[in-house]
Amino acid sequence: MSRVYNFSAGPAMLPEPVLQQAQAELPAWQSSGMSVMEMSHRGKEFIAIAEQAEADLRELLAIPTNYKVLFLQGGASLQFAMVPLNLLRGGNEADYLNTGLWSKKAVAEAKKYCQVHLAINAEPNNFTTLPAYDSSKLNPYAAYVHYTPNETINGLEFHTIPDVGDKPLVADMSSTILSRPLDVSKYGLIYAGAQKNIGPAGLTIVIVREDLTDNAMPGTPTMLMYKTHLDNQSMYNTPPTYAWYIAGLVFKWLKDQGGLAAMGERNQRKAAMLYAAIDQSEFYGNPVALPYRSWMNVPFTIKNPDLEKTFLAEAKTAGLVSLAGHRSVGGMRASIYNAMPEAGVQALIEFMNDFAKRNG
Amino acid sequence: MSRVYNFSAGPAMLPEPVLQQAQAELPAWQSSGMSVMEMSHRGKEFIAIAEQAEADLRELLAIPTNYKVLFLQGGASLQFAMVPLNLLRGGNEADYLNTGLWSKKAVAEAKKYCQVHLAINAEPNNFTTLPAYDSSKLNPYAAYVHYTPNETINGLEFHTIPDVGDKPLVADMSSTILSRPLDVSKYGLIYAGAQKNIGPAGLTIVIVREDLTDNAMPGTPTMLMYKTHLDNQSMYNTPPTYAWYIAGLVFKWLKDQGGLAAMGERNQRKAAMLYAAIDQSEFYGNPVALPYRSWMNVPFTIKNPDLEKTFLAEAKTAGLVSLAGHRSVGGMRASIYNAMPEAGVQALIEFMNDFAKRNG
Repeated sequence: MSRVYNFSAGPAMLPEPVLQQAQAELPAWQSSGMSVMEMSHRGKEFIAIAEQAEADLRELLAIPTNYKVLFLQGGASLQFAMVPLNLLRGGNEADYLNTGLWSKKAVAEAKKYCQVHLAINAEPNNFTTLPAYDSSKLNPYAAYVHYTPNETINGLEFHTIPDVGDKPLVADMSSTILSRPLDVSKYGLIYAGAQKNIGPAGLTIVIVREDLTDNAMPGTPTMLMYKTHLDNQSMYNTPPTYAWYIAGLVFKWLKDQGGLAAMGERNQRKAAMLYAAIDQSEFYGNPVALPYRSWMNVPFTIKNPDLEKTFLAEAKTAGLVSLAGHRSVGGMRASIYNAMPEAGVQALIEFMNDFAKRNG
Repeated sequence: MSRVYNFSAGPAMLPEPVLQQAQAELPAWQSSGMSVMEMSHRGKEFIAIAEQAEADLRELLAIPTNYKVLFLQGGASLQFAMVPLNLLRGGNEADYLNTGLWSKKAVAEAKKYCQVHLAINAEPNNFTTLPAYDSSKLNPYAAYVHYTPNETINGLEFHTIPDVGDKPLVADMSSTILSRPLDVSKYGLIYAGAQKNIGPAGLTIVIVREDLTDNAMPGTPTMLMYKTHLDNQSMYNTPPTYAWYIAGLVFKWLKDQGGLAAMGERNQRKAAMLYAAIDQSEFYGNPVALPYRSWMNVPFTIKNPDLEKTFLAEAKTAGLVSLAGHRSVGGMRASIYNAMPEAGVQALIEFMNDFAKRNG
């Protein structure tokens, strides 16, 4: 097989050893005589796979025992509703940090269920910098504070955890989870669609402090109550078993790489290389303020936008694919999650330098 | 690899040619240089896979053009809420046919959103037969009529479509879809979790008459509105791409088998063989009334229940696995979906006869 470097924002690259093991085990897992896709979720083989995946994730993130891990469906977009439905807990106000297009979608959905106060709003700066923030800007009546630590589309990232006092802090970590060590105890709830740094699309991981799950809004669908899944070890109904298994292989691979401290160093190096190449050129640009640049999603433009189509076509021919920016913002974007090797980032930089030389 | 005959009710067996193709293509699909799991759902490769899957499903079921096909997440359990949230359309009453444990769950969820009238109720008969029914028993104020054509746990099946006049008929077809030809035009909405007759867990297929989707209840989460997915070709957010791809391989396999007419004949033969073996023995029993026995899920008991554990253990040793009945009803159950070959059913019957001889 000839593999490419795939810079897709998600679904995104998976580590090659994970794909190799998945391929070898596809028709029959170990001595079970069946594919993981064919296993009853209540059988002992799949239970063992599921429990090992959770144990490895707990180890990687050092998740405290009073936090539960849920393996759900529906992506971050369903969490945009589940968070207010479960965490308002009788209140009707919540604080949101509006820092990019994904925050905006979370805000829009929350407004169906409560009054939303924007503790900070980066939209007037076109989501290129984070406004100054301190906890005195929070609404004292907010039931929780929601933010998006890494904005996948805008390439804007928090490199510190916002101080929210004793309010539950809720984070959409879809595009940053597992990219570096994390202090889970600072959060009330963390959620992440799997398809960037965890595994295949169709799995959503929720890490929730268990005391926050017992008071969903009346009328909440049973499947949208965290408590339903918490009380049933994520097996109230059939979970996305194959995606759960692949996620487990990814967690094992992360441990083999040295865990999240090692991944964090590697990710920081990859991002630094790519931003340096952009900043040192007269040809490319990145609009995001230096302290808030994402390690995971690097949007960039060509100063002469007429060259973008040629850039994307030639990059593809060179085996560097899915570099188009999100359809809502245009330009280019290189998503460089855990599974993107440093060699892939180097290949991109070489291509960018060569393209600039030929077209500059 | 040594494969077993897997009688799991779901996730369930997949056709071997599907697993073989999935294995071959796992690290790199065609000339794309990437796994299907790694593809952007908005890239041209995945769009081609997705569109082909839908086209093949439409062909198999002869789906009329005024019906839309949605590829969703959350399983039948999420549909239990989505159906009333979307189809009450300003009304507050719905009719349900209560014919087994899955119907009961659908009823319980619907009661969160409306008054439920049980047009028939098989619970007094312990879900072993279908009470007589005619459309005069329907509530004239019902916004729709919901039923479960095949009860996976109880092994009870409708072999004709209930007459509901001009009311939208809604069906949970999780364990019967694609098992035989179907007249989709008789329905308002059909839904099915994939993990029995379609593909891997984590995908839910909805076939809906498009005029029914425009009036969700206020406060319905965006992700729970059919219209959201209909307006975005099931790509409002990232769909379960790999499960969608595997489902497409299953649809192609079904076409190669001769389509649903051929599958229906094969499934009827498989079920008839197994019921004959049960009925002809003094050793085994099945409680379901003859006209309503399921072609897909065959529960059976041993007249001496002390032998059940030995039966299950010896069957497993013989390569016949996942034969335990649902934990709510006990006994045994053989799920014999499309992917279970006739040879698998024959092997089970031979084992059953031999076990009866040795223990009778």
